[in-house]
Amino acid sequence: MKKYFLLTPGPTPVPPEVASAEAQPILHHRTTEFGKIFIDVIDGMKYVFQTKNDVLMVTGSGTAAMEASVVNLLSAGDEVIVASCGNFGDRWENICNAYGVKVHKVAVEWGQAINPVDIEEILKKNKNIKAVFTTHTETSTGIVNDIETIGKIVKDTEAVLVVDTVSGLVNQKFLTDDWYVDVAVTGSQKGLMSPPGLSFVTVSPKAWQLVEKSTLPKFYFDFKRMRKSIDNKETPFTPAVSLVVAIHKAIEMIKEKTLEKIWYDTEKLAKAVRAAVKSMGLKIFCDENHISNIVTPISMPEGVDGQKVVKTLREEFGISIAGGQSKLKGKIVRIAHMGYIDKTDLVVGISFLELVLRRFGVNIEVGSGVKTFQEVLEAK
Amino acid sequence: MKKYFLLTPGPTPVPPEVASAEAQPILHHRTTEFGKIFIDVIDGMKYVFQTKNDVLMVTGSGTAAMEASVVNLLSAGDEVIVASCGNFGDRWENICNAYGVKVHKVAVEWGQAINPVDIEEILKKNKNIKAVFTTHTETSTGIVNDIETIGKIVKDTEAVLVVDTVSGLVNQKFLTDDWYVDVAVTGSQKGLMSPPGLSFVTVSPKAWQLVEKSTLPKFYFDFKRMRKSIDNKETPFTPAVSLVVAIHKAIEMIKEKTLEKIWYDTEKLAKAVRAAVKSMGLKIFCDENHISNIVTPISMPEGVDGQKVVKTLREEFGISIAGGQSKLKGKIVRIAHMGYIDKTDLVVGISFLELVLRRFGVNIEVGSGVKTFQEVLEAK
Repeated sequence: MKKYFLLTPGPTPVPPEVASAEAQPILHHRTTEFGKIFIDVIDGMKYVFQTKNDVLMVTGSGTAAMEASVVNLLSAGDEVIVASCGNFGDRWENICNAYGVKVHKVAVEWGQAINPVDIEEILKKNKNIKAVFTTHTETSTGIVNDIETIGKIVKDTEAVLVVDTVSGLVNQKFLTDDWYVDVAVTGSQKGLMSPPGLSFVTVSPKAWQLVEKSTLPKFYFDFKRMRKSIDNKETPFTPAVSLVVAIHKAIEMIKEKTLEKIWYDTEKLAKAVRAAVKSMGLKIFCDENHISNIVTPISMPEGVDGQKVVKTLREEFGISIAGGQSKLKGKIVRIAHMGYIDKTDLVVGISFLELVLRRFGVNIEVGSGVKTFQEVLEAK
Repeated sequence: MKKYFLLTPGPTPVPPEVASAEAQPILHHRTTEFGKIFIDVIDGMKYVFQTKNDVLMVTGSGTAAMEASVVNLLSAGDEVIVASCGNFGDRWENICNAYGVKVHKVAVEWGQAINPVDIEEILKKNKNIKAVFTTHTETSTGIVNDIETIGKIVKDTEAVLVVDTVSGLVNQKFLTDDWYVDVAVTGSQKGLMSPPGLSFVTVSPKAWQLVEKSTLPKFYFDFKRMRKSIDNKETPFTPAVSLVVAIHKAIEMIKEKTLEKIWYDTEKLAKAVRAAVKSMGLKIFCDENHISNIVTPISMPEGVDGQKVVKTLREEFGISIAGGQSKLKGKIVRIAHMGYIDKTDLVVGISFLELVLRRFGVNIEVGSGVKTFQEVLEAK
């Protein structure tokens, strides 16, 4: 009888329309009917990514699509830049290391944004760089990176720009083509408000040239095989049929609302959450000049264990927010505002966060955050 | 308003209980609640595989789990045997080739079963063989291979036995431990009567020893990372949460019915379908001494294009059966009896197959196949 609220930066709640679509009888994946839905999804994702490039689909987590990008673009011994400002940026490095790709790392303190000039300097010094890997919105710290500027730097070099926008796409403005992103990667379970299990990749003509030269081994992740199948309105292997039908519905809803309206609404929600958090006497963890709109990272006051806050909210009140990852474990908590999460969910989240923090000895007037949240939202 | 019947050897229809479970609100994957469901699924799969070995889960198609087995067990240049009797057996070879693994191929004409002695001979001559890859039920031709005998041959060598039972598991008897199978691979969308998108792998202690020595690159498919996560009741990356919740329900249903009863019922259905097909004057495509119970491969009479039969059944009557794959395209059609497919679905399938074949000029008395099907099923 418990009611659940999912306020995590992935997976995010699934609208009832999408859940119903997911539960429809399974279609065979080599039928005209499924082929039509699949191609609709691919075309819909071109709108969501704002691209005219090829879009490919992988049955697998966002990490699968990240790895697919590495193995399709590169060869062992290739040199790349990984520009990371957190846990997900570091994942690019870990994948490259697993494949014997040589990484030039651009890193900043967690909570700060990547400085595009740092990438530019390495590219100037090293003409062998084949690819620059980075992260659009780094959910582990709350940062959004300046992909537009990075794109301008990378476009005139031999390197391709590969961006993880698993969490950012849909809710945080992302323009694949206008920003010269060669490969963009996303997952179904964040802004796309669908269940986890599908991921998508865009591939520019410049990236396809690298694919032709790549010798890293691949089979399930082979981009060329995927592209060839799309010509037949198919996937190379049995796809997660029910998830494709689900995301088909979700994309329809996104197109109906339009990306511009979603970006605008998400920004309003984000501003209201940040104001609420501050009015509760709490601090925003990351650099607010580069804070994303999809998640608010909140520093825990001295002596309060963020993991315990998350656990209490989840187990006693059915509210899932996220804790800190890796070196931030216990030090921050994170409230997401992406996908199907809306103001009603956030009022619940903020209200019970107040309550739980007070229990942990923080001097908070219950209701103060909710009041600020509503007032900021209501202001013109 | 059209009614759909899925009689293909994967994906198979999903019971309404499983579809409802799939559509439940998304749980966060790092919660106690999801952890419990996940571990239940892992334990349930040990029953389904009939194993005490580790079971690992991959968010991806069956092919993803096949590739995961190759990259976790082997190193480039390793020598292996691929014993293939059809399209899916050949897939092992294609994956090995992609990773620079040297394949000794054991092949038979499509429609015949693998002769275990052929494997034994290579193993005797070549002590460097690291693994033997083969297929339990080869759905492209309808064959079930004698894994028990192959297991006895491989167990006393240095090699591990890796078996694709993506289509066979649940409906065709398969005893991982008793048959000395070191690595067994399956998918969610066949006997497990769940949507496609999840796959599972068993790993024996002998196989883990190979994993320790393997140097093929991997990240998303890394078995050691998966095993470590299971200790924390987690997956390394966001899993297909809704598919896990769905298969959790399906496994509960399988356990309730028991594997023994499912094997028995499937065999009865298979016999009735084969008899029906023959009574219609049609021929079974494969060697009936080694025919599986999960799919009936039917040779098309001279001059009848199987692809057109499949297309008419699908587009006009909403009934999906499978055509021939690769070199069998057009020459056979295949009716599955696995997972949630039952006698009511098969009566529909057989009846409209009669009708469509008559349209294509085959001399068939409509009703003859259905009559035989019912009579064979009814016979004690």
